[in-house]
Amino acid sequence: MAAHAQGSDQPPAGHPGGSDQPPAGGHLSTDEFRRAGHAVVDWIADYWQSLEKHPVLAATPPGAVTRALPAAPPEQGEPFDAILADLDRVVVPGLTHWQHPGFFGYFPANTSAPSVLGDLVSAGLGVQGMLWTTSPACTEVETVMLDWLAQLLDLPDRFRSHHAGGGVIQDSASSATLVATLVAVHRASGGTWRDAGTASHGYTVYTSTQGHSSIEKAARIAGIGERGVRLVEVDPRTLAMRPDALRSALNADLAAGRRPAIVVATIGTTSTTAIDPVAEIGEICAEYGVWLHVDAAYAGAAAVCPELRWTHAGLERADSYCFDPHKWLLTGFDCDAFWVADRAELVEALTVMPEYLRNAVTDSGAVVDYRDWQVPLGRRFRALKLWFVLRGYGAQGLRAHVRCGVAHASWFAEQVRADDRFEVVTPGPFSLVCFRLRDQPNQADAALVDQVNESLLDRINASGQVFLTHTRVDGRFTLRLAVGAPRTERRHVAAAWELITDAATDLLRP
Amino acid sequence: MAAHAQGSDQPPAGHPGGSDQPPAGGHLSTDEFRRAGHAVVDWIADYWQSLEKHPVLAATPPGAVTRALPAAPPEQGEPFDAILADLDRVVVPGLTHWQHPGFFGYFPANTSAPSVLGDLVSAGLGVQGMLWTTSPACTEVETVMLDWLAQLLDLPDRFRSHHAGGGVIQDSASSATLVATLVAVHRASGGTWRDAGTASHGYTVYTSTQGHSSIEKAARIAGIGERGVRLVEVDPRTLAMRPDALRSALNADLAAGRRPAIVVATIGTTSTTAIDPVAEIGEICAEYGVWLHVDAAYAGAAAVCPELRWTHAGLERADSYCFDPHKWLLTGFDCDAFWVADRAELVEALTVMPEYLRNAVTDSGAVVDYRDWQVPLGRRFRALKLWFVLRGYGAQGLRAHVRCGVAHASWFAEQVRADDRFEVVTPGPFSLVCFRLRDQPNQADAALVDQVNESLLDRINASGQVFLTHTRVDGRFTLRLAVGAPRTERRHVAAAWELITDAATDLLRP
Repeated sequence: MAAHAQGSDQPPAGHPGGSDQPPAGGHLSTDEFRRAGHAVVDWIADYWQSLEKHPVLAATPPGAVTRALPAAPPEQGEPFDAILADLDRVVVPGLTHWQHPGFFGYFPANTSAPSVLGDLVSAGLGVQGMLWTTSPACTEVETVMLDWLAQLLDLPDRFRSHHAGGGVIQDSASSATLVATLVAVHRASGGTWRDAGTASHGYTVYTSTQGHSSIEKAARIAGIGERGVRLVEVDPRTLAMRPDALRSALNADLAAGRRPAIVVATIGTTSTTAIDPVAEIGEICAEYGVWLHVDAAYAGAAAVCPELRWTHAGLERADSYCFDPHKWLLTGFDCDAFWVADRAELVEALTVMPEYLRNAVTDSGAVVDYRDWQVPLGRRFRALKLWFVLRGYGAQGLRAHVRCGVAHASWFAEQVRADDRFEVVTPGPFSLVCFRLRDQPNQADAALVDQVNESLLDRINASGQVFLTHTRVDGRFTLRLAVGAPRTERRHVAAAWELITDAATDLLRP
Repeated sequence: MAAHAQGSDQPPAGHPGGSDQPPAGGHLSTDEFRRAGHAVVDWIADYWQSLEKHPVLAATPPGAVTRALPAAPPEQGEPFDAILADLDRVVVPGLTHWQHPGFFGYFPANTSAPSVLGDLVSAGLGVQGMLWTTSPACTEVETVMLDWLAQLLDLPDRFRSHHAGGGVIQDSASSATLVATLVAVHRASGGTWRDAGTASHGYTVYTSTQGHSSIEKAARIAGIGERGVRLVEVDPRTLAMRPDALRSALNADLAAGRRPAIVVATIGTTSTTAIDPVAEIGEICAEYGVWLHVDAAYAGAAAVCPELRWTHAGLERADSYCFDPHKWLLTGFDCDAFWVADRAELVEALTVMPEYLRNAVTDSGAVVDYRDWQVPLGRRFRALKLWFVLRGYGAQGLRAHVRCGVAHASWFAEQVRADDRFEVVTPGPFSLVCFRLRDQPNQADAALVDQVNESLLDRINASGQVFLTHTRVDGRFTLRLAVGAPRTERRHVAAAWELITDAATDLLRP
């Protein structure tokens, strides 16, 4: 390494792409990279094939992974094989396996071979797309992919790049909600927000009691504070936002001199996949001049299927919309697709232009600089994985994947309904089933029934075969089974149901 | 696909990890994934080996990449080879090649074989580390890697996880600055911020006139507004923040009833790698009870070398600190390492706990849930690439990489100094050289000299062999040559200098 450090004309020993001299300090020559890369690809393929042998939920106690790692980094580089071997020893036992066919927790964060390969290309290229000029393809492929997605979901024209809108990849729906909130406040301020901040105007944010926690967090980050967040009541049957309650909340705030900035409606709430009445909410937003953001983080993917597009009715009133291809559309985390109807307003709210980022093509206004569409400055070439997924599966393959999840969930719900010890708590058209052991005539104590349901969840998760999570609906403990991992087949859902009924039989034994 | 869509017990045809049946809809079987994965690895190796054949800066005009892509996504899945072939046809011509040895623009965003392979493992595992329980290894490897980095940089003990502090990976220094700003306001508010937001307290933020644009953007996002941002004067010679000017600014704001929240000091400014006097600034922050965040996005990596640690003097006064391994430490974007001295305060500021994320181990307080350390909820397993890099290179390899960049820059600065047509604008100990054609006795017009320098930059960038960017120092157009790509050798820096002197000779010809 000495020669390298002193800057001689010798190739930097062992740097990737450098000479094929023996590597120094654990660097890999290009040939070694090929060998190591093939080994990693094979390791992943083996991992995928062995997924069912692992317990879904990690069984390691807190600190176990930490203890398996040295307390200090190595002084000398280590051979690649040693690193790869430690994956099996240290990492895999400490994983909760999101790609396991028995993973039914939260919402899926599924991925696929095309996504992994697209992401690998992105890592290898190592370009940074903060500006159009720092890699035009990084920006333009992203714009086209978001237009493709808009077609696949049949989103309103206003979100497409040949109209006044456009799409961008955010890391997550949380960040999409934050960005929407910022532009909404910018609009509500009449353009004073960039300079004056949120001070003294009492900006307010509206979502339903079922809205995602990131909405409250976005309001906090934006300096609005929880005092400015209104959790609008829902219809107790559907758990969807009540438009009349929204209107009342808006009126109350306006009467108190506050400034309503944004309504976040949800298509497919996290708790139960409830669907807010976007069309009615959109009319109210138009009437009051309030920004409407629609958060379809999980359920948006369903709109690739024409038979499920009714869930997106009214979207033409939205100022912004997002969903996560990284949840249910076979694209690895992170990949949130976020659209706005007015890209100029978004850029106006978020742009900052220091001298060191100035360049002729940006000044010409002929290009999109995505740094102005997000919180961070830098950005990866995430559109590549989307490109690989959309081409690898095609529209038909994506629809098949969504229909598969819906069919599995629907089959599971049928089993639940057919067993009179259980109840389906909320009906949903997607791939989530919320269910629980129902209150028995001889068990009047709701808290006790909740405890039995909690024990049921603990017991099936302890099996290692499945992982489900929970929510509370109307205060009551409720199990959630969310389908979406690409390897989940009917037999896995059937096995889950068998585990659940066996555990229930045990727990309900007098 | 029909069987799959209907949820039969047949394996989902062609889903990765499924059967090895012929794939439907462009899905890849596991064996096909192996073959395609090997092909992608080889494609990347070939790309790295061919880097010098490409012009550094993309030559495609706006819209060229878009026009090379179909207007609509395919209905049927496409074979993998067709997708891979389009990389060369559509993507590569539209890239600015950040890994090219002649890339001297901005700051480096370098990557390496170990980083790419660690990231590939992360993509293959597809786990989501929002909570400890959603993959304990994702959280614990990250905590250990940030402790390793703290040792490598010899950061103060207070930032390490066995003290009250700890580290976390953010996507970028922009996000680290935002998070620091939020916790700082939380502290400055006396705990009222979460509820009341930034309303009516006149929070203020301080950085130097040379601070990164993300500081202003963070203040805007946080609802403080640009009205609350103070750009403190710098020493005209060093471009480092003047502590006396900071003190004056704090006094003026306090006298006006405002509430100073955070000072962002910089180690290695983006424009010229100026180093703020962190020790003196830290004393002032302690005296005034203001949060001190230190942004060493690019230059932090230098602290792996003991001989450059003087640049980090005074850091023991900082409440938070960040640097980007994705800039100059061989780790692919995105990977910003962010530390706080008091992790409890950070979590208190950012946590939100809905029912669907509750779990026993979180409730026990025994673990770290990194979702509470950042803006988004979800997170990738980014610590893997860091683990691969730190082990693959070892401390020695990382030091050699940094020393290599410093030696190249130092050699280049010597050439500039030896040519009396040029001047080195600011001295810097890192791997950035700021330089320009000096004002000639016969050219009194500064604007004209600036134009000549601008033409010089355009001309050398048009060669395709190198890419440099610019800044303005004291209003004057200045070229920046930033070394850091792992493939950059002395000969590339020498070729850059030759291009520059040849162009200068042409431009200065009477």
